[in-house]
Order: sequence, then structure tokens, then C-alpha cells
Amino acid sequence: MSSKVTTELLKQLCQVMRSSKHITEPIQAYIVPSGDAHQSEYIAPCDCRRAFISGFDGSADFTFAVRARIEGKQGVRDPSSLLPMRRVPEVLSWEMELLERVCLSSRRTGCSLGRGTGQEVGGSGLCPLQHTCCTAIITEQNAAMWTDGRYFLQAASQMDNNWTLMKMGVKDTPSQEDWLVSVLPEGSRVGVDPFIISADQWKRMSKVLRSAGHTLVPVSENLIDVVWVDRPQRPCKPLITLGLSYTGVGWKEKITILRLKMAERKVPWLVVTALDEVAWLFNLRGSDVEYNPVFFAYAIIGINSIRLFIDGDRMTDPAVRKHLQLDSTLEPEFKIQVLPYESILTELQAICTGLSPKEKVWLSDKASYALTEAIPKVHRYLTPYTPICLGKAVKNEAETAGMRRAHIKDAVALCELFNWLEKEVPKGTVTEISAADKAEEFRSQQNDFVELSFATISSTGPNGAIIHYKPVPETNRTLSMSEIYLLDSGAQYKDGTTDVTRTMHFGTPSAYEKECFTYVLKGHIAVSAAIFPNGTKGHLLDSFARSALWDTGLDYLHGTGHGVGSFLNVHEGPCGISYKTFADEPLEAGMVVSDEPGYYEDGSFGIRIENVVLVVPAETKYNFKNRGSLTFEPLTLVPIQTKMIDVHLLTQKECDWVNNYHQKCREVIGAELERQGRHEALQWLLKETGPITRMQ
Amino acid sequence: MSSKVTTELLKQLCQVMRSSKHITEPIQAYIVPSGDAHQSEYIAPCDCRRAFISGFDGSADFTFAVRARIEGKQGVRDPSSLLPMRRVPEVLSWEMELLERVCLSSRRTGCSLGRGTGQEVGGSGLCPLQHTCCTAIITEQNAAMWTDGRYFLQAASQMDNNWTLMKMGVKDTPSQEDWLVSVLPEGSRVGVDPFIISADQWKRMSKVLRSAGHTLVPVSENLIDVVWVDRPQRPCKPLITLGLSYTGVGWKEKITILRLKMAERKVPWLVVTALDEVAWLFNLRGSDVEYNPVFFAYAIIGINSIRLFIDGDRMTDPAVRKHLQLDSTLEPEFKIQVLPYESILTELQAICTGLSPKEKVWLSDKASYALTEAIPKVHRYLTPYTPICLGKAVKNEAETAGMRRAHIKDAVALCELFNWLEKEVPKGTVTEISAADKAEEFRSQQNDFVELSFATISSTGPNGAIIHYKPVPETNRTLSMSEIYLLDSGAQYKDGTTDVTRTMHFGTPSAYEKECFTYVLKGHIAVSAAIFPNGTKGHLLDSFARSALWDTGLDYLHGTGHGVGSFLNVHEGPCGISYKTFADEPLEAGMVVSDEPGYYEDGSFGIRIENVVLVVPAETKYNFKNRGSLTFEPLTLVPIQTKMIDVHLLTQKECDWVNNYHQKCREVIGAELERQGRHEALQWLLKETGPITRMQ
Repeated sequence: MSSKVTTELLKQLCQVMRSSKHITEPIQAYIVPSGDAHQSEYIAPCDCRRAFISGFDGSADFTFAVRARIEGKQGVRDPSSLLPMRRVPEVLSWEMELLERVCLSSRRTGCSLGRGTGQEVGGSGLCPLQHTCCTAIITEQNAAMWTDGRYFLQAASQMDNNWTLMKMGVKDTPSQEDWLVSVLPEGSRVGVDPFIISADQWKRMSKVLRSAGHTLVPVSENLIDVVWVDRPQRPCKPLITLGLSYTGVGWKEKITILRLKMAERKVPWLVVTALDEVAWLFNLRGSDVEYNPVFFAYAIIGINSIRLFIDGDRMTDPAVRKHLQLDSTLEPEFKIQVLPYESILTELQAICTGLSPKEKVWLSDKASYALTEAIPKVHRYLTPYTPICLGKAVKNEAETAGMRRAHIKDAVALCELFNWLEKEVPKGTVTEISAADKAEEFRSQQNDFVELSFATISSTGPNGAIIHYKPVPETNRTLSMSEIYLLDSGAQYKDGTTDVTRTMHFGTPSAYEKECFTYVLKGHIAVSAAIFPNGTKGHLLDSFARSALWDTGLDYLHGTGHGVGSFLNVHEGPCGISYKTFADEPLEAGMVVSDEPGYYEDGSFGIRIENVVLVVPAETKYNFKNRGSLTFEPLTLVPIQTKMIDVHLLTQKECDWVNNYHQKCREVIGAELERQGRHEALQWLLKETGPITRMQ
Repeated sequence: MSSKVTTELLKQLCQVMRSSKHITEPIQAYIVPSGDAHQSEYIAPCDCRRAFISGFDGSADFTFAVRARIEGKQGVRDPSSLLPMRRVPEVLSWEMELLERVCLSSRRTGCSLGRGTGQEVGGSGLCPLQHTCCTAIITEQNAAMWTDGRYFLQAASQMDNNWTLMKMGVKDTPSQEDWLVSVLPEGSRVGVDPFIISADQWKRMSKVLRSAGHTLVPVSENLIDVVWVDRPQRPCKPLITLGLSYTGVGWKEKITILRLKMAERKVPWLVVTALDEVAWLFNLRGSDVEYNPVFFAYAIIGINSIRLFIDGDRMTDPAVRKHLQLDSTLEPEFKIQVLPYESILTELQAICTGLSPKEKVWLSDKASYALTEAIPKVHRYLTPYTPICLGKAVKNEAETAGMRRAHIKDAVALCELFNWLEKEVPKGTVTEISAADKAEEFRSQQNDFVELSFATISSTGPNGAIIHYKPVPETNRTLSMSEIYLLDSGAQYKDGTTDVTRTMHFGTPSAYEKECFTYVLKGHIAVSAAIFPNGTKGHLLDSFARSALWDTGLDYLHGTGHGVGSFLNVHEGPCGISYKTFADEPLEAGMVVSDEPGYYEDGSFGIRIENVVLVVPAETKYNFKNRGSLTFEPLTLVPIQTKMIDVHLLTQKECDWVNNYHQKCREVIGAELERQGRHEALQWLLKETGPITRMQ
């Protein structure tokens, strides 16, 4: 892998930084964060500006490739590989530290695995090829890149000598602010795109710079875009309209409920900036960003007006026009005013000009500096979660039914896959990549399939121990009878989003592998079967998932669960299950989260058992003095490989849980396999779901 | 209970607020918080200014008296009491809400039961008669008192018509800032004693006032003290010096270690404001405040100097002079400069004047506005916990040995007590108060006994359900053969601090009482036997204590554990076990916390099982890849009444735990009872610690 030559690019950027054509007064430094203007987890290619200017694309692939090389393919470790191997624990120890740090700043999705964990770090965005905790800063003399331990090797290799790597989490690495203060001449101006930086990041940075005599200035034209001649266009793909059978509630009703929430707080305006919130509110979906069925848009909801900021000819689509009733005679308060995407700022400013002294504008506290600043301080009403975020998290009956359907179809696809794998793996012809492709093929045969919900983690042997692994040709291993295989995958169907992990062995697992698997299973069951009072936050359940592992001195370094959208982002807030005490909201009946404890033996194998579960009311003997209680119902209905279980480590209750779960898989998925005429997969399901017993 | 007449007092205060003798420019409002200048949990009578000016003393006794009246003595509930009874659940529901709110602002001790929970709410202090979330504000026209649901009835009854009660947690109750803005004339000045308000409270309040055109001003003379003619003197009791056998580490060595920590952070100065931190650092104890063996003092530690700010003739005591080596020839960096208590501010200001540009002064972020403000912003180094707080929490070998000795003596006293109760209760002559007195009597017979460590919670029947109960004549119930008895008590010995709760029945408990007790016991064991990796924070263990209760729809509305000092405050930071996500530090071997789940059936009974436990290294099969692991060792060795256990609800592991625990009680406490010639109590111990079996 060779580094990108950036000398010329940086020279151009520095010219632009001084050019009166692009900026009123020259700036001495320019900050390039990783996110987009919507604080998205996944971002579009046109927003990958940090990758463009530095060459460092923050791709997880790279680390895996290097580590696979270090660890030796197929588990072979020759003496000559000893020296580089030492680097692995070092990287891992930083991973650990960073996971800890991430927990403090984790924000919106509460994403537990950090597949594309942009939102864990400061709330800004991330595409599969970019990680948000990375930030580039360019001055007239320097170019520096801040990134975390997972990316040290990759960044060092992808960037040329113009760049200094700033290892976050490493002692004596300066913060961005402190570094700026140390290199800038007195009274410098530091520029940043105010749409890409969040309001609180701006505040923190601006404060330090100001106290050192410098100024942070918003630069409205993005200066990277000026020098990025072949920058891709912002995607503008056709929209999908969702009818009541999918959404349960029409968009007009959603607007009415939203306005009630606004009236409760006496706030006449609300600005919607998160892409999944816009999509959910209008019962529309898109495909502007990979894996997330969203489209680039903003909305401003007033008590009597609706403004939708969206580009392209998408609003000329008759289906969309009909769905939004753009050509119908409507009560004025439901008349949608369609405006250009880019006009959000001027429109918001115009609204604010007309506000009476006590009127407020509601905005997420993670929104961009540009939009936050457009609202005068006295008119700002900021909350960690908008009422849309909270409403979206609690699935209604139609959404729940859709999620159930989606999970049944997903289970059918996986039964087909696992049946296929059992036949093919012994032949030695299946690789991580071909298995992932096959999984996608089976899923795509199902009704209402749209796309995958994230990049498939298909990993065998030591690759399984790399939590964010995604197979690429350099790392691709062949599945074998002697290694554990971990598949973490999911899809977007028009009726729901899935995310499931199964870990299996196609030969004979070792006693140690079974032992570890069983502890992970015990943790999975402990969460899934937990009963807890109404009002409990998910983070209070995290230790249940670890207790069995802890008892024997094992643990895993990621959270246990994240919220899951309904044909929306596979990671969504405001709930989750994690040791990280992010500001999660209490669990409520109708919320959907994942339950995914794991165990990772570095260099050997990875185990994870993940179901998507629905929060449902529980029945208890004393019912918390009518406070009521909750538990989980698994939506995922895919067999858990009993071959991997050491039944003697299970309690009778746990044994019963497994048998009841498998009984349900048989009934529900069995019927669907039958209906679809997938007899071989049905046989496989029946074989895999036979009851286990403790006394043998 | 009649209310205090405050008309004249308030008139005088308003005169003082305008008097040029006491204040440079008149103020239009004066804020009277509840704390002292050290953010103490318990405060001295001279600091009970809010109680003096309003009559509302925030005494827990009152609520209990009213509720006991409402509920009827001895459990008799006649129809005429139905109406007032309705008030109880109302109060309780506010208690619940407030416990939730408390969790957000909880700060320093992480006190789980909030006996004297001053520090839970905003970090300021509380004496047994005052609660910190209470604040009085006096303007020229109004006097208002903010307090929480636990105190609504009491405050309303103790305050006269001059006062408006502001019910915190109740909808539409304005915040102090908002209320001030609504009542003050334009451009008002609001005064407060800068030593009593913490820096962050000041910041919050000042911001709101400023944005409404008012000014928050520090008033150096306390204006309550001006009108409080018979204000008690600040206590100035003799000091106790602790030798190496108690402390393990001499004060000079502690200073040296502290200076190393300061050097690590490149901070040449540290200001010690918490009373227990001053006491711990110098291996001194006092008795200026009830239950907490501390004395009024501050310290400023420089890299080469030590300043101790302390009043009275305590420094003329030859033992103290010798202990601090005040008359010896010492290396200059260990020479203690003794200064008047009141001179802390001028001395700190003088130090700050001499600072070079990059030099910092270390201070807790909970310190008073006065001291925080004395340090120019660029020189401030604020952290949630000082290195003294962190050092104090990890007990060394001598302290651990002392804690063990103290708990053995404490167990001897309780065996005597419980043996005595079993004989006396059937006679109907023992009351909650006489039982508490008897407990104190037995404790005082033990070597190195100093005083109680908190007000004894001695409660039977419905009183047991009142978590912060303290028996007073109006509520005092007679212990009987038909009610559960809960005793939560502890003592200060020169070698350690104890805190233990046992719940027992002197007749035959009902099946339901046994069921609840057993769930609480299961929770107690789940925490006590938990194994967890190094670096785990206590709040991650809280749900273990609740799981068995949750499964049947029961819960308790307090945390599970708090840090315990070593012959110091019974509640100390920075560790704890709570669902409240306060900023607790990770548990470390040598830390001491309580493990005290409970269950409370309002109007019927209370159950709590509390041991003080020591964090110790654990041995696990796989040892977390050398990350190491921890568990707890009970220091408290007092029998848990097996009569209350429904053994069929225990697992074999839990049964074994109980039997092992009782075996240890027999061995350790048995030997000590033998040594002290307490044969009858020894027989009681043997009777109570017989093994239990599941298969009957």
C-alpha cells in the first residue's frame, strides 16, 4: 500500500486559505473533520474530505490486512514473524484505552460494536471508509492528522511525509487546540466549515484558541471542495414511499403528534437535521448513503408550516408527490413547502428574524455549529434527543409486525446459508468473502429485500477476534473444519432492519472453545431473559451479559447492545446496553435493541451471539407495586449451534431458555421454510433445534 | 410542632442587606444555602444558618413523626386515619422522583442511602438536622425555601407565613434563578456567602441572573451571622494523633507521595478543603462534627512548603506538637506553617500573586466559589477528586488490619445485643430507642471506641420501611414477636469505622417476609461474591443486587453501597455501588465499600442486609489475560438470621456462601467472644450460625 502524494494538494489548499476569492480574510489554519452536515454514522463519498486531502481513508480493512500479515495466514506463526507480532498487543492496549475513552464521549446511537462507530466519538459522521475521531488540520507550515490506536499503522502508511501523525490516547500527544496554539503565529485565524463541526466541538476549540489570542472562524465555502476537482456529486437517488402497512402512522399524524410535543414545551419551531429523522417523519426512504436507507434533506416543522429541504428531481416523482400530497388541497398546516437543500441556513435565519422575544427553536444539541449559530442564543432550545428520535425508537404495531416479518425472512436466508455452508465447507472451497456473498444472495431472494444493513463481518479463525473485521482479498481466509466461523450480518427489508450474529464450528470444537461459547451464551440469555422495572436504562443490564465470563476471568471490550431502526439505520439511539454510561434513555416497550455479548481470543477465534430483541411488558409476581416491568422478546429466530454448547455449564433455567428458543425457531421459521418450499433448509433447521438436556 | 416566628429576624436581615456597615452596596436578595465551607456531609451547629433564619431544620425526625401519626402506632389503622394516609404515597412518589434526580447531581461520596445525603445533591454539606438540597432566599419582599418531597410537610409546618415553600421536583416550581428573575426589580444585586456556595453552583446561577440583567455578588461577611446573636462558636475540640500502627504511613511520607502526584501533573500547589482529607493527610482526628472524626482546618501543600490553617489552642497540645514535629529540626519542606483558619483566603491569594505564568494550583472542582475564584483562571487545575481523596480510599495494610479489628469488636457488641434482644423482646420492654441505646452501650465497652459513625436506624414494623428512619419519642415503637426489626448502626473506633445492617424476627416470620428477605440476601450475595476485571466501576455491579428482586417484581429505591473511611467518614468517595451513574472511580484492591440491598414494604416492614466489604484480588481460571480481577471479602462478621431465609429459593452456591460466611463468623468472632469471656453471646453466635441445607 503506497501513500498518497499530497504536496501539490496542500500547496493549493494553502493558496485557497489566503485567496480573497474564497475567503474574506486569510486564515492561517484549516480544520478538516471527518463528518457530514447531518452528524451521520455513514457518510457519502462526496463528504469524505479528510480522506481526500490526506490519503488516509480510515479504512478498517487496512488494519486487518496488516494484522493478518503479522499474525500469519492460516494461523502459521514462524519465528521471523515474532518481532512484528509484538506490535499487536500494543495496538490492542490502545484499542482498550480508546474504547474506554469512547465511552465518555459516546453520544447518539450508543452503537455497541462500533462497526461504523462515528457517532460514538463526538457525534459526527463516518462512512465505511472514514472514522470520525480522525481530524486533519492544515497550516501554512504543517499538516497533522489526529487518529486513534486502531488506525496508527494505517494512517502512517497511507500518508506521505507532509503529514504528522497525532496519536490520540498516547501520552504527550497534544490536543488539536493545544497543537494549534503551539504552532500558530500570534493572532491567527483558524477556519472550519461550520456545517461539519458540531456546536459543542466549536465551543471547546474556540474557547482555547481565544484564550491564546487566536480566532476560530466559520468559512462558508468548503475549501477542500475548492481544490477537489473530481469531487463526486452529492447523491440524489430516487425515494421510496412507505404506506401505512409499513409505518402504522401517516406522516400527517406524525407531524400532529410532533406539534403536540412542541406545544407541551411551548416551542413553535423544530429543525430536523438527522437524516433518519427526516426519513422517519415523512415515511420516505432513500439510498443516498450505503447501508442506511436515508436521503439528504433537512426539515423545519412549525406549528402551522412544514418546510422540506431536498434537492434533485426527486420531488417530481408522481408517487412521491402523491405520498406527500403536494398537489392536493390540504389544510394549510400540512402543506409541505419544498425548498432547495442548500437553502436551510437562509430559511432558518429568516424564521429567526421573525421570532417574538419568547419564541424558541428546537434543535438537537449535536447539530452543526452553522445551524445552531443561526438561532440567536435566547431563541435556542437544545435537547440531547429530539422528540422524533424518541418517537422513532418506540416501534408501533405495524412496525413491530414488519420487524417480525423481516426477521423471519432473514432467518430463512440464514438457514439456507448455514445448510449450504455445512455441505460446502468440507470441500475447502468457501472463503469469508464467498460466504458473505452467498449470505447476501440468499437474503436478496426474500420479499422486500433492499440492501444489506452494514458491511458483513464474515470471519474465521483469528480474523474472528478482530471485532470490526470485514473480509478483503488480502485477509480472506478459507472456512475450514478446524476453525470457528463468526458471521455478523443483516439486511434492510422494506418492512424492517435485521442484524444477527451466529458463531459456529463445522468440525469438532475444542473443550475451551465450547467453554467460552457457553459463557457468551449464558450472558446472552441473562440479558434476553432479564426482567427489570419500567424506567430502567439499558446500561444497567450490561453486567448481566458479562457475569459468567467474569467468573472465569474473561471479558469482551465492546458494549452489549444498540438500538435498531425499523427499515432505517441499524444503529440508532437513544437506547442501548453498554458499560459505557452514555446518556441512554430508559427502555420502553416497543423499543428494539441488539443483545450481542462476545468473547475474542486474540490470534485464535472470535465468538459472538447476537439477537435483535423487542422490549415487551413482563409479568411478575408482585409487579413492582404497579410500576410495571419489562423484558425482551427475541425477534431474531436463527438456531444457536448446540454443538458449541457445554451443557454442563448451563443451569436448568438456561437449558430451558435454549430449548424454548429453538422450539420457537422450529415453529415460526419452520413454517416459513415450508411455505417457501425450502425443504433442505427445513431439515437443517429441525436437525439444529433438537432439545438439549443437562443430565446425560 | 409550632413554627418559628421569623418576622423580626427577616426585617433585621433586610436592614443588614442595605447597611453600608456590612456591605459596600445594598443587595436586593440574599441566598442562604445549607452547607459549610468544606462541602461536608455533616455540619456543625454554627453552620446551620438556613435552619436558624427559617425555623426549618430539615430534620428527618419530623417526617417520621408525621408519618407514624398518619399510619397509626403499632400498625393500628382506624378508618378515621384514611384521609391523611392518602398523603403518604404522594410523598413517596416524590421521594422516588427525587431519588432519580439525586442520581444526576450526586457527587462526592456516592452515599447510597442518603442518611445524611448532603453530598448527593450538588456537593454541599448537611448536618443531621439540615439537608443541603434546601436553600433559602430572602428578598426585600419575599422569603422562599426550596426543598424536596421528603421535607414538604415538615417545612410547611416549621415555617411561618413569611415563607413560601418551593416544592422541588413538583411541576411548575420555579428554579431559584428563575424565581429571582421573576421577583427582582431590574438591575438587582443578589448576594451570597462565597464560602458556602460551590463554584459550579455560582456559575450556573450567575449566568441566568446576568442574562436577565442582575448581578450575583459575593458578600464576604455572612449576613445571617450578623443577625444571629446567640450563634454557637465554631467547635474547636482537642485533636487525636494517630500513630503508624493505625495509619501505616506517616504524614511526611503521605506528603511526599502527594508531591510526587503533583509533580506528575506539573502542579506545584494543592489546596485541601475537605475536612476528612486534611485529617487523613496529617494522621489527625477531631470531634468538631458529630459522627465524623474531623476538625475544622484547611491545608495548602506546596512542593517545598506546608501550610495548615487551624484555630484554637489545639496546636499547643504537646502530643500534637510532637506528632507534627513542630518543635523539631526538620527538612524545610516538612516544616508545617500553622496559620489561623480564617487566613486561608488571603494566604491563597498571596500564593497566586507569586505564581509564574505556567504554574497551577490544584483544587477539587467541588470547592467553594471563594477559594476557586481566588485562583486566577489560568492558574486553576480542577479535578473531581484530589489525589488525597483517591489515596485515602485505598486502605493500606495497617488500615486494613485496623478495619478488621474494628469489625471484630463491632460484631462482638452486636452478638451481645442480639442475644440480649432475644431474651428481652418477649417481655415487651424494649423499644427502638432503648435497643439503639443498648447497642451503643455494648459498642462503648469495646477497646478504642470513640463514638457512633451515624445516627442509629433502629426500626420495627412499618418504621422499617422508612429508609432514613431514626427513632424519636413520637415514633418510638416497642419491639415485638410479630414484627420485623431492622438495625442499621455503626461506630468509630480508633482503628476503623463500621456500618452494619441486620434484619431479624423474634417470633415467626410470614412466608412473604421470608421470601422478600431471601431475595435481598440473594442480591447481597450476588454483589459480595461477584468477580469482575480490574478497572470496573462500582455502578456496574448494582444490578446484580437487584436481579432476584426484579425477577419477582420487587425493587428498592436506594443505591447498593458507599465507600467507608478508615476511622473517618462512614460515607466517602470516590467509589460506590449504585444505579445512579455518579462519577465513581474504578474499584481497586484495598478500597472498602458497603453492600446493602434492601426491600421496603410501605406501612409494613423494611429489610436490609448490609456488610462492609473489602475489595481484594480474585483468582480466576483465565485471569482476564493478566488484566487481573477483583472480588469482595466481608469485613462485617455478624450472623444473618437463618430463620428469615427460605432456603428453597437459594441456589447451592448461595447456600454454600451463607454457610461459609457463618463458619467464618464462628471462627473469628467466636474466638474473640471467648477471649472477652462473653460466653452467653458465644452460645448465641453458635446457635445462629448452624449450617443450612437446601434439601430438607
